[in-house]
Amino acid sequence: MADARPRIAFLGTGLMGAPMARRLLGAGFPVTVWNRDVAKAQPLAADGAEVAQSAGDAARDASVVITMLTNGDAVAQVLFASGVAEALEPGAVVVDMSSIPPPVAREHSKRLGQHGLAHIDAPVSGGVVGAQAGTLAIMAGGEAADIDELAAVFAPMGRLTHVGPSGSGQLAKLGNQQIVAITIAAIAEAMLMIEAGGGSPEAFRNAIRGGFAESRILELHGQRMVSRDFKPGGSSNNQLKDLNAVLATAENLGLTLPLTEAVREEFAEFIADGGGEVDHSGLLLHLEKLNAREKGK
Amino acid sequence: MADARPRIAFLGTGLMGAPMARRLLGAGFPVTVWNRDVAKAQPLAADGAEVAQSAGDAARDASVVITMLTNGDAVAQVLFASGVAEALEPGAVVVDMSSIPPPVAREHSKRLGQHGLAHIDAPVSGGVVGAQAGTLAIMAGGEAADIDELAAVFAPMGRLTHVGPSGSGQLAKLGNQQIVAITIAAIAEAMLMIEAGGGSPEAFRNAIRGGFAESRILELHGQRMVSRDFKPGGSSNNQLKDLNAVLATAENLGLTLPLTEAVREEFAEFIADGGGEVDHSGLLLHLEKLNAREKGK
Repeated sequence: MADARPRIAFLGTGLMGAPMARRLLGAGFPVTVWNRDVAKAQPLAADGAEVAQSAGDAARDASVVITMLTNGDAVAQVLFASGVAEALEPGAVVVDMSSIPPPVAREHSKRLGQHGLAHIDAPVSGGVVGAQAGTLAIMAGGEAADIDELAAVFAPMGRLTHVGPSGSGQLAKLGNQQIVAITIAAIAEAMLMIEAGGGSPEAFRNAIRGGFAESRILELHGQRMVSRDFKPGGSSNNQLKDLNAVLATAENLGLTLPLTEAVREEFAEFIADGGGEVDHSGLLLHLEKLNAREKGK
Repeated sequence: MADARPRIAFLGTGLMGAPMARRLLGAGFPVTVWNRDVAKAQPLAADGAEVAQSAGDAARDASVVITMLTNGDAVAQVLFASGVAEALEPGAVVVDMSSIPPPVAREHSKRLGQHGLAHIDAPVSGGVVGAQAGTLAIMAGGEAADIDELAAVFAPMGRLTHVGPSGSGQLAKLGNQQIVAITIAAIAEAMLMIEAGGGSPEAFRNAIRGGFAESRILELHGQRMVSRDFKPGGSSNNQLKDLNAVLATAENLGLTLPLTEAVREEFAEFIADGGGEVDHSGLLLHLEKLNAREKGK
């Protein structure tokens, strides 16, 4: 792949994958797409993609495979049970942009290595908007040489940072999700206090923008709390799944993370109370209910 | 004060007050400055300020008094025990930009009202850099008419938002500090996990910028954690003082705020362990020590 643009197999063209594949097509890469439900891959033909009927078919002529799938099992299934690893020529690279646990990413790296294939774990943050605009934060783990070689492939999708060895991209994504969850809880607790104290949550959010409390979460999820728009977005179920992965990782590393534990508890209670499919910013609803109950005591 | 620029008495020209007064002088307002330690007021003479020997003297010809003092006691002392309230003509306005508890601000408002004086509580966020640049987030509580009338006075110092009735500015400032403290803890816990897991905290911080975890705290305090520069800045003692004020306010309002309680506990332990004069981003040191102890068990 020294001269020509490498053929890319893009496996998993869901909410995030489709706009990411579209960015690659827009940048002139030849892309073959595949999705388990082929109806989600088909529209990319209009953007110039070849649409494959199986993951193995998609991978056959590719030198780069990108996976953007739901979880670690789905990634393992596609790579090792549907012929992708066997279809690739030695020297090809698998870039897994799904969010999966760090040890699972490291295991995939090892198994692909046995096929003579390189592996990069490169999950993203920035949502569908970032995927469409090509402004995703891409957190990469793996060998620096492999990652550097693919700089041109990452560029149309977002901003790439090499965080460390295999699994570090997934570790960074967990850290990202941990910060997101805790920041949401921080803003929800502040909003609750402002409202109870007679101030306006909307004016509060406006007031503190530009100060030290400014954040992307204040901008986006703070606005959701103000307008009480809790359609996901990112569901509380997914947020709890991420927090459980963070705390499992912390436990493996022998770490105690007090605020992460506290926010996990809040999300677990919210979900036990029916909030699982509510946007994670809906943690405000849980805090409101918790405090209504406390007052009832 | 309908036509001419009102004379402003600026009381308290410390780290924040001095650059704020300088912004007002630069915008062409006549300003008389006073500071308990007059040596801190004197340099403003070079910027065109009159320097008064007492707070009462400073207030005598002013139609707007701005206070920027250490705490509620200092504000009460200056307003009510050193002749400021008596020196002002009815119709003058006192703008307290200090950070003090909301009930204390409301009490000052009432007492000033008995003198025929208006009161606005208008604490700020953005630090010395924001004070110098005139980009502070100014959170105002009080009557809309009073606040609107002073729009031109606030403009050189930063961006003004009216949050609600008397005390709401202070309430918003507490909410701001609460978000700051919890976000610091979130980033510290994530950094701890990244480092323990073999990733680079510096690369992690770079990687997640531009994603959903982006914040001013990640930019500033995250950088402090990466470069392990914990000279304050904002001390952990001050952060704990703010968190205690938040939780006292919450208690008065009958609210339970789980993450705020968790982060207060961490700061209290850090300070008990000698961290009081360390920057609040130094909470990372506490988490590192806590986890070293846990492993030693």
